[in-house]
Amino acid sequence: MSETPLAIGVDFGGTSVKFGVLYRSNIIDQAPAISTPDFDGPEALITAMLRVIADLRDRHPRIEAIGVGVPGFVQFEKGIVHNLTNVPGWTAIPLKKMLAAETHLPVVVENDANCMVYAEWKRGAGRGLNHLIALTLGTGVGGGVVANGKMIRGGQFGAGEIGQMSIDWRGRRGAYGNMGALEDYVGNNEIAADSRQAYADAGIERHLGECTPAALAKAALLGDEVALKIWDDIAAKLACAIMNCCWLLNPQAVIIGGGVAKAGDLLFNPLTAHLYAQLSAPFKERLMVLPARFGNEAGMVGAAALALEESGVVLQP
Amino acid sequence: MSETPLAIGVDFGGTSVKFGVLYRSNIIDQAPAISTPDFDGPEALITAMLRVIADLRDRHPRIEAIGVGVPGFVQFEKGIVHNLTNVPGWTAIPLKKMLAAETHLPVVVENDANCMVYAEWKRGAGRGLNHLIALTLGTGVGGGVVANGKMIRGGQFGAGEIGQMSIDWRGRRGAYGNMGALEDYVGNNEIAADSRQAYADAGIERHLGECTPAALAKAALLGDEVALKIWDDIAAKLACAIMNCCWLLNPQAVIIGGGVAKAGDLLFNPLTAHLYAQLSAPFKERLMVLPARFGNEAGMVGAAALALEESGVVLQP
Repeated sequence: MSETPLAIGVDFGGTSVKFGVLYRSNIIDQAPAISTPDFDGPEALITAMLRVIADLRDRHPRIEAIGVGVPGFVQFEKGIVHNLTNVPGWTAIPLKKMLAAETHLPVVVENDANCMVYAEWKRGAGRGLNHLIALTLGTGVGGGVVANGKMIRGGQFGAGEIGQMSIDWRGRRGAYGNMGALEDYVGNNEIAADSRQAYADAGIERHLGECTPAALAKAALLGDEVALKIWDDIAAKLACAIMNCCWLLNPQAVIIGGGVAKAGDLLFNPLTAHLYAQLSAPFKERLMVLPARFGNEAGMVGAAALALEESGVVLQP
Repeated sequence: MSETPLAIGVDFGGTSVKFGVLYRSNIIDQAPAISTPDFDGPEALITAMLRVIADLRDRHPRIEAIGVGVPGFVQFEKGIVHNLTNVPGWTAIPLKKMLAAETHLPVVVENDANCMVYAEWKRGAGRGLNHLIALTLGTGVGGGVVANGKMIRGGQFGAGEIGQMSIDWRGRRGAYGNMGALEDYVGNNEIAADSRQAYADAGIERHLGECTPAALAKAALLGDEVALKIWDDIAAKLACAIMNCCWLLNPQAVIIGGGVAKAGDLLFNPLTAHLYAQLSAPFKERLMVLPARFGNEAGMVGAAALALEESGVVLQP
């Protein structure tokens, strides 16, 4: 191993908190995950996190920074968690300050989708690029933007919410009053509900459990016409939101990860077709549409990379 | 006057080429405009431009840079005009090199919408901000993006095409195959056609000429219910595209200029209502929706400011 320092990447989710020790993009050690709902409020959970961090540092003295990705809205500069989508009690928590005070290490706290984007940009499919967008497709749709060789966080550190962008100005009303939000069409649950309806329209009865992205991919591979049409539909809706990002930002690459992206060519082929059909030459000629390199580990990888690079422990390569 | 250098700002349009001598945001002198279609191809027009530039420099020896805004696609770094929307023959013209070789001054060549954005950012409604988007509403809809205190040009210098962003994934098919492009709903001609239809639906006959933004504004101010509904509709469509930019980039301000924006409160009131109703707190609490400071002079002001600042004649303030 070289002198590249180690970092802890923490992936803070609504179900569990995962801890990895990262050497570049490799998780060289992992602590047992903590169950998020087992803890009564932020203080108890932070105390447990500090205990895990201390254990990992005992085993790996070369750990030099800590990055935490959280499922919600973060003031990145100060590392304050404003609120978390599915974790009660996490309002205005100065997580960075609290972790740094105990560990005496540089700490960064960032939105989990931005960590995924950072992982793909610095260690994954987008290495070496200066302009990219990345999406993660699951129950929700998250994303992020890199432009001019920098993460774009915006005035209040909220940027990158591709899932909330509209594909229909008169469409479904979303969680924030936004009409036609992408997430309300291509989130896992919406795909299942719309697919059950598509089967019903074709005179076929399906349970929601038979309409998961995995089941739909399997059906499409077996030549199921309804399932093939569903994937084309998902691709067309995704292409609309991605096309909007392309016209606005002219990225070099669009990187797509998350569960729905596991459908592979079933998604990527119609997606690129719909996308390229709706862009002019300078926007598509050198545009790459790429699957994400990382899966579930993206949050830990990105948080650790952010911790090392944006806290100044190592300069960006 | 201080030692701030002067610059020539050139606004190259399909109808005419306008030349201003800029001291900060003030046009202190103007040459008579050249009629674009009078010249047979780029070489003749560039020769004429150089003559005007030489005249202006005779009158203002302190001119230290030249900026040109053009209505089309530009490779900004090299200053090559790839193609212009309404000016035949302008394909792969190294305009920057040709002007610099004759004038021995720093020259920048940029897309005209980006010049407008630059003018508003450096000299207009967006001064001092690090994250903004700007739109200009006319026959077409142009725009641009500033993030992290830099213009966002993207991988191929095409960024900022807000008018091509979709508000409906199954909407009208636009110039580049893109479905539901904003420009195809709120461009002058589309507003007129849709408005004539709205009047017809209400049993009222109107000519297209009575459905200009100016005429619709006048009618709405007099309490015309159809016209008021039309403005609300325009605002809702605009709000969709702007909301998409906000979710993606979390800007501090949205700046809106161009002919359609002259409707003032008739547009801005429903626009901000539709926009704020579709954003969560961090995206709207400090968001400013501002009318542009500059009108027709924006191109010259922005081109001159770009010439001084991005060519390195003066450092950015």
